[in-house]
Amino acid sequence: MKNIPHKIYLQESELPKYWYNVVSDMPDKPDPFMHPGTLKPIVLEDLIPVFCKELSEQELDRTTRYFEIPDEVFDYYKTFRPSPLVRAYNLEKELQTPAKIYYKFEGNNTSGSHKLNSAAAQVYYCKKQGLTKLTTETGAGQWGTALAMACAYFKLDLTVYMVKISYEQKPFRKAVIQTYGADIVPSPSETTEVGKKILAANPGTGGSLGCAISEAIEVALKSENCRYVLGSVLNHVLLHQSVIGLETKAAFEKIDEYPDIIIGCAGGGSNAGGLMSPFVKDKIEKKQSPYFILVEPVSCPSLTRGKFTYDFGDTGNMTPLAKMYTIGNGYIPSPNHAGGLRYHGMSPIVSKLYHDRIIDEARAVEQTKVFEAATLFAKCETILPAPESSHAVRVAIDEALKCKETGEAKNILFGLSGTGYFDMTAYTQFMDKTMTDYIPTDADLEKGFASIPKFPGLE
Amino acid sequence: MKNIPHKIYLQESELPKYWYNVVSDMPDKPDPFMHPGTLKPIVLEDLIPVFCKELSEQELDRTTRYFEIPDEVFDYYKTFRPSPLVRAYNLEKELQTPAKIYYKFEGNNTSGSHKLNSAAAQVYYCKKQGLTKLTTETGAGQWGTALAMACAYFKLDLTVYMVKISYEQKPFRKAVIQTYGADIVPSPSETTEVGKKILAANPGTGGSLGCAISEAIEVALKSENCRYVLGSVLNHVLLHQSVIGLETKAAFEKIDEYPDIIIGCAGGGSNAGGLMSPFVKDKIEKKQSPYFILVEPVSCPSLTRGKFTYDFGDTGNMTPLAKMYTIGNGYIPSPNHAGGLRYHGMSPIVSKLYHDRIIDEARAVEQTKVFEAATLFAKCETILPAPESSHAVRVAIDEALKCKETGEAKNILFGLSGTGYFDMTAYTQFMDKTMTDYIPTDADLEKGFASIPKFPGLE
Repeated sequence: MKNIPHKIYLQESELPKYWYNVVSDMPDKPDPFMHPGTLKPIVLEDLIPVFCKELSEQELDRTTRYFEIPDEVFDYYKTFRPSPLVRAYNLEKELQTPAKIYYKFEGNNTSGSHKLNSAAAQVYYCKKQGLTKLTTETGAGQWGTALAMACAYFKLDLTVYMVKISYEQKPFRKAVIQTYGADIVPSPSETTEVGKKILAANPGTGGSLGCAISEAIEVALKSENCRYVLGSVLNHVLLHQSVIGLETKAAFEKIDEYPDIIIGCAGGGSNAGGLMSPFVKDKIEKKQSPYFILVEPVSCPSLTRGKFTYDFGDTGNMTPLAKMYTIGNGYIPSPNHAGGLRYHGMSPIVSKLYHDRIIDEARAVEQTKVFEAATLFAKCETILPAPESSHAVRVAIDEALKCKETGEAKNILFGLSGTGYFDMTAYTQFMDKTMTDYIPTDADLEKGFASIPKFPGLE
Repeated sequence: MKNIPHKIYLQESELPKYWYNVVSDMPDKPDPFMHPGTLKPIVLEDLIPVFCKELSEQELDRTTRYFEIPDEVFDYYKTFRPSPLVRAYNLEKELQTPAKIYYKFEGNNTSGSHKLNSAAAQVYYCKKQGLTKLTTETGAGQWGTALAMACAYFKLDLTVYMVKISYEQKPFRKAVIQTYGADIVPSPSETTEVGKKILAANPGTGGSLGCAISEAIEVALKSENCRYVLGSVLNHVLLHQSVIGLETKAAFEKIDEYPDIIIGCAGGGSNAGGLMSPFVKDKIEKKQSPYFILVEPVSCPSLTRGKFTYDFGDTGNMTPLAKMYTIGNGYIPSPNHAGGLRYHGMSPIVSKLYHDRIIDEARAVEQTKVFEAATLFAKCETILPAPESSHAVRVAIDEALKCKETGEAKNILFGLSGTGYFDMTAYTQFMDKTMTDYIPTDADLEKGFASIPKFPGLE
């Protein structure tokens, strides 16, 4: 029997030097982003007032297969990468399964998630362009933390518009972001026109991600030296996150194994897309065909119950239109939803791969089952997983239990995208049994669908 | 020029298989623990009602050089070890120092610190003895978390007596401990005689570590299947923590380097002792002589201003007497002390090594300077360090800046024992400039010294 170590770390010399652009290999490309005014495909000129130029070019690139990781980004990566590919021996033992469970753990950095992979790249390109200031929004705070860390390293100013309710409920996240030197503004705020307007209409509002995005974009557009950056959904974010899958693939090669099943939790799709894309390449090239499963919460079921159509990326309808799985930009998950992954849409790349069934399956899970899996995982594997990542843990356990029934020794790989240290309120709800599940009715979803814009000729 | 990677991870086959007992090699052994009733050296029979037998034997062992790490502990170690030895290239660049800065990072596990190394061992030996339940105390919560994790893994029940003020101020720590399945009792409590007595005398007290220790020991003594476990100070804890130094030494051998200076923060001494002991061996054997620096806060200066004498380990005076550096078991650091390392005494082994100047120097630093260093480190190296560990960061930076002046390219190694995610209140105080420094007056220290017991013939 092969002796596979608990953890496989690549040597520095084995680290990926390139990001992989899965779009270049897709037989059918994702439909282009559309300008909501002209209803024509977005072009570079539309993007560069908001995003920096090289990121805009990456966003639109459909042919370049590999992008070299710049030396400056690679140097920064070396402070928190490689992340380990871990064989979950203890979990296997606990489940008494013949399956071999592996996870790629992206949470071993202070942002607590994979978000830093793209933050590093985005901040670098902005710096290279001579920009001095960035804006972004953050909800739960992982992206805001990652970006603050990268801005501290590359010495750019950053203003984070943090959804007001999170700002108030997550003082520690706020403090981490401030420790790295970024400014935080609770959104909606008096610092922008859109913020003032919203505050005038709803003086007591706790804010929303959509509003925070609008404020961050407004500020970025006002200054020549400032741009906006986003942590998920977009093509260039998936490009940077391919480093997760590339490292994973290299680690599997080191132990001469290959995953039969690949599981990723999907909110905006950057983690699952990044983990899966190099393996998707194998499937497109008909070399090997792992079975891909995307996991989402039943309470925010964009893939399992959404429509594959054009929608805005934000509730404020300031972004381009994206063809994606969506339950409507106006959909708001029930307040009892504690488990993350609350975005109404999905990365256009991931959406297209799933629509074409190159990604085989999307599965929705209930949050109480997710936290049950998270707790079991924590006890066996020591790591306290993020609620988001725990969706993947749930399905990995379910698949391993199926193997127990069938006797199959499948290689199950999942992405453990982050840690849950800042999500203890949700864990406490689970332990106190005050956590409930929420399955939206068809009528609930119809309300969300009603917010999807209707443009003639676009669907 | 040699190409030293950012991170050096040992392969699984290179991991230490033994813990190193530095006492076996010390030319002058530490003075024995004394029984406060008989004033005679503690023997095995004194310890085994409180601690499990094998741990008691390890505690008293002065001759065995290496203890084999049991397979079960080694298997558990593999879920969170090896920890990386990191070359702090970015910090070096920021400081423009010719020094080479290395740190051994023990914070990459959910307990957020090195404490899990000994928790794993202690829980295993208790399980092996057939015990079913353990008790302990926790203040800040790192030890409580580590022990809860190990008890979840080895499936033992655990009750943690958590200092009431921490229990109330650190709900997330509490939630993590509970997620791993341990019971938490805010101390003082009605569950013990000593707790009841303290509550009757001081109904509104926020508790203390000394009181929590007393409660945990009382409960352990009441049941045949229950024992008490402790996370620092004791010899067997240092033994287990030697895994830090052994891994570090093996990693340095891999890159054919050796540290000129080794810096460790010291509260009870388990982290610094664990990191330093295999290098202390080199010094005792006159093979190589790194310069050792212990770092403590100016507000709790047991090494730099304390007495080397016999004192109790706890404020309740329930423990044996230990010969150590102490500022008195009744010493309580000022409430403005946010930076950890608040124990009145010091590991007897570390105390003796320092007293005999095998460990060269102890240095006390102010907490505002500590957090200044912590923030700089976080920005360069991505990791947000624990306040405790940041004491070592401070001195590492100071030593690197000295090298900048002299032009020396020294190898500086420090122990980064943990992460600061649960210490954001202290970071916020630093950012808000509400953090102050406190240097106890001689009169303040005299009050602490007054609590050191006076026994004829013992000093």
